[in-house]
Amino acid sequence: MPDNEQLENWLNKRRERRKHLTANELFPKIQAGSREALSAAITLLESNRKEDAQEAQQLIRQSLPFQNRSWRIGITGVPGVGKSTFIEAFGKEIIQRGLKLAVLAIDPSSNVTGGSILGDKTRMNWLSTQENAFIRPSAAGNSLGGVNRTTRETIALCEAAGFDVIFIETVGVGQSETLVHSMVDFFLLLMLSGAGDELQGIKRGIMEMADAIVITKADGTNIEKSKLARAQYANALHLFPPKQSQWIPSAKICSSIDNTGLGEVWQLIEAFFNHIHSNGWYEENRKKQAINVLHSHLKSLMLQQFLETDKAKSLIQTKEQAVLKGEISAYQASEDIFKALFLSV
Amino acid sequence: MPDNEQLENWLNKRRERRKHLTANELFPKIQAGSREALSAAITLLESNRKEDAQEAQQLIRQSLPFQNRSWRIGITGVPGVGKSTFIEAFGKEIIQRGLKLAVLAIDPSSNVTGGSILGDKTRMNWLSTQENAFIRPSAAGNSLGGVNRTTRETIALCEAAGFDVIFIETVGVGQSETLVHSMVDFFLLLMLSGAGDELQGIKRGIMEMADAIVITKADGTNIEKSKLARAQYANALHLFPPKQSQWIPSAKICSSIDNTGLGEVWQLIEAFFNHIHSNGWYEENRKKQAINVLHSHLKSLMLQQFLETDKAKSLIQTKEQAVLKGEISAYQASEDIFKALFLSV
Repeated sequence: MPDNEQLENWLNKRRERRKHLTANELFPKIQAGSREALSAAITLLESNRKEDAQEAQQLIRQSLPFQNRSWRIGITGVPGVGKSTFIEAFGKEIIQRGLKLAVLAIDPSSNVTGGSILGDKTRMNWLSTQENAFIRPSAAGNSLGGVNRTTRETIALCEAAGFDVIFIETVGVGQSETLVHSMVDFFLLLMLSGAGDELQGIKRGIMEMADAIVITKADGTNIEKSKLARAQYANALHLFPPKQSQWIPSAKICSSIDNTGLGEVWQLIEAFFNHIHSNGWYEENRKKQAINVLHSHLKSLMLQQFLETDKAKSLIQTKEQAVLKGEISAYQASEDIFKALFLSV
Repeated sequence: MPDNEQLENWLNKRRERRKHLTANELFPKIQAGSREALSAAITLLESNRKEDAQEAQQLIRQSLPFQNRSWRIGITGVPGVGKSTFIEAFGKEIIQRGLKLAVLAIDPSSNVTGGSILGDKTRMNWLSTQENAFIRPSAAGNSLGGVNRTTRETIALCEAAGFDVIFIETVGVGQSETLVHSMVDFFLLLMLSGAGDELQGIKRGIMEMADAIVITKADGTNIEKSKLARAQYANALHLFPPKQSQWIPSAKICSSIDNTGLGEVWQLIEAFFNHIHSNGWYEENRKKQAINVLHSHLKSLMLQQFLETDKAKSLIQTKEQAVLKGEISAYQASEDIFKALFLSV
């Protein structure tokens, strides 16, 4: 853990960066491969300050023409499955092929000043020192859209910065998987051998989203068990309905310690991207994702505008009481609220 | 199938009924047990005419003080599981205990003039002739809220009419189960023996909602298979997380032909209602359901008001194109749409 002085220094440096550079200054540096400029730009995205938001949107506009080049890969698995160790080893595999890798971590509980960044970088010793790797947690922030928006826009910046592969890592325990699935091309589920899926807390819905299951820690006395688990998961994957991408998911084993199986996982991912490039799903899926974002963000803007004002909240509360007392129907109540809010716009 | 003349007669009778009676005239008749008055009232609920809507809302207001007395039971299962035969036999069991039973069927594809009513009544020969039974499909209609609202309000009318038990039947193939689950106290899933749940098209999410699974057609050479299926389903039910009601679901077998097992199903339902009355879930759940209706209806009113106008639709289409061309981000697009719609309110 860093001490307070270290943290204070780091925060000061961050404030300095934010103070001095505008979107127009940052963008060429990002394209030139400056990791500091990219970090500063992401900090702008995460900021709640109005001036920052304008600069951030300017950056996004400049990044848009550079979309659609990277491979976006979602990685999930319950705590303990060895995500950081896997990403460190698998990232090495990718870097050594001459590719540039960005690792974005979504952690609903993280926040920038809490030290997550330093924590993540520490867990990825080798990667964090590589010129061609960039590691960054996605802080939830308080901006409208939260993790969702910040992460999507960070992806756009990373693409403009020329990263070939972008990992979006999430803790496999909650709703964040669906979110990650909605912003990636390939969804990778990490599993442990010798644990039923109940034990691993992985919901069926998450398995259904997976393009591949990789069983980690297939080393030492664990190898046979891992092979068995691979067969079982491969079987389970076949029971799900076919994917829109027409891709048939499969299961692999690997060891981040023995450094085995990682090349095969990469080959699988290459096969996937060949497949979706040739059948058009890569383009089609990204279009669908963009249109979905438009609609869901528009709805949340509207609902927020109308329903989260103090006036609306107190009106809703009053009508809820009337419904609970049986004085009016829930339908009547919602129509009353709607009319009251709407006449006052 | 009725011929055209029969259908025409029936429709005329219905039009007559609608023409002559107001809410204030209908309500006392409904309370006095007139099935014709109840039918006429439901027809008002399903109507798209403005005058009818006012009368219908008046009826609902009058019915509200009589809520919270009936047992609302959702019944689902794939086509072929024998829902109508089960309801006919199980309904007899209930009627013979001196209770009044209403059977409402939700069929997203039905519409009142299509003959579903006559069809349903034909399949429930005995029930349809009973003074203490009332059978009515819930037509989708075109009113805001569709099946959802009409069915909920029909339930309120049936409660005011003094029905002790209300079945809400749905075809177990789609989204309608979640809808039905959100308006009942007890959710019953009918299954066949000897078919995996994949084969029966029942999603895990539907099993998760079930308060009981009843295996139908446990007769003849099918009895042993049904007992085996009961054990398997009982096992499967234990794997789901505990219910908020603290009720532990179980599996039963029955035969609507041999008339076996139906008494046991009824005893199970009685045990359920004793349980939820004593732990307060009956009240709590109904309150939650009402508050959920308020919020979801309010949201749909707002989204409909703003997003389904021609102006909004064409604006959205234009912005979608801009997003697809990579000219603006999906977030920017939704904010542009929001501002454009909002300034014009």
